[in-house]
Amino acid sequence: MARKLYELVGVEPDRPFSPYCWRTRMALAHKQLPVDSVPWRFTDTEALAFSGQGKVPVLVDGAKTVFDSWTIAGYLEDTYSDKPSLFDGLTGKAMAAFFGNWVDSVVHGALARIILLDIYEHIGDKDKAYFRKSREERFGTTLEAVVADPEAKLAAFRQALHPVRMTVRQQPFLGGSGPRYADYILFGAFQWARAISPRHLLAADDPIAAWRARLLDLHGGLAGKAKGFPV
Amino acid sequence: MARKLYELVGVEPDRPFSPYCWRTRMALAHKQLPVDSVPWRFTDTEALAFSGQGKVPVLVDGAKTVFDSWTIAGYLEDTYSDKPSLFDGLTGKAMAAFFGNWVDSVVHGALARIILLDIYEHIGDKDKAYFRKSREERFGTTLEAVVADPEAKLAAFRQALHPVRMTVRQQPFLGGSGPRYADYILFGAFQWARAISPRHLLAADDPIAAWRARLLDLHGGLAGKAKGFPV
Repeated sequence: MARKLYELVGVEPDRPFSPYCWRTRMALAHKQLPVDSVPWRFTDTEALAFSGQGKVPVLVDGAKTVFDSWTIAGYLEDTYSDKPSLFDGLTGKAMAAFFGNWVDSVVHGALARIILLDIYEHIGDKDKAYFRKSREERFGTTLEAVVADPEAKLAAFRQALHPVRMTVRQQPFLGGSGPRYADYILFGAFQWARAISPRHLLAADDPIAAWRARLLDLHGGLAGKAKGFPV
Repeated sequence: MARKLYELVGVEPDRPFSPYCWRTRMALAHKQLPVDSVPWRFTDTEALAFSGQGKVPVLVDGAKTVFDSWTIAGYLEDTYSDKPSLFDGLTGKAMAAFFGNWVDSVVHGALARIILLDIYEHIGDKDKAYFRKSREERFGTTLEAVVADPEAKLAAFRQALHPVRMTVRQQPFLGGSGPRYADYILFGAFQWARAISPRHLLAADDPIAAWRARLLDLHGGLAGKAKGFPV
């Protein structure tokens, strides 16, 4: 197939866990575009050299190579404008930019403090050395210290999601009556956790859990069928 | 004039300071709709009885009475669909709903911890008694304790705004190339503070300060000309 997505995996090549790769996977499905997954690991630096940079997701779409999940989303929206829209116009895209910045900084930050060591348990030895060094530099402490006091970390994560909770009480998706790219932005975080962590992030009666269930079912159950822990 | 907006004021009738009323004021200007302001104070319960509830903003538009800033925004968008759009479609509106929930819970919460006592200083004696009692119940402590340690409160407010900072580095408005209702949602918080507090909420080189300056200038300088402290 002409379309390939380089996705982050751990020891098992069929357990993609990058939140950003999941955004792209869901966006491709939203656009009804089939794609082949190419497993990629943290230390496979050479494998991405063709893209001119070193991070996934990288989408190869025929002759075109696109990297960075936000850039890919814009590329898909513009290139496949006849397919269901990810943003529903320029204001929708501008608002999704804010939403992505909020998820990247607030939600990912809170979630990393819960699952960082679970990621470590799912990657190979060479990747483990890279992961420990780079993440301990980023957080300024050991992986073990980052995830200490898990009850407090879980409470902080749930509290950070409060504006989402208020919203999905009012409407089924962040994008309104149907899913849009903003839904995939947040859902990527939950797929990140689900792939590698046994922790239950949401109370069963949390309205966000119902929203997550809707996302797991979308596009033929694409996300729900992926390898992961029960949520 | 047939169009009236009931707005919260303090001792001075020309110093409207409610963040929700400012959202509506800016939305009316965005829709190019002139309006007469009707000053309203916390304890003027009888004055709103005609609306069937007790909070501002209340918009009287000819024979129609609408309350709640979000409901008013939807009413203006639907009724004056030939005028510049506040949401730019259903996804834009759905995303603005999330944004409003985020501002209401995170931004207003952080800002109240800076300016609560400044509000108190600008209202009359009867309102003061109501305000102290209702806010001390809500926060579970005295007004003075809520605003204690102002340096830490200011740092927390600036940190909470980080996703906005990231966004207005990328685009001039939250709505993209031009202002949309989401901009007015956040701007309402800054007008709330500016009306009654001498505190400087943003560093001069904060990209959010440049965004705020753009909002102060909009619609003939409507917000910038309103009574308030230098920002």
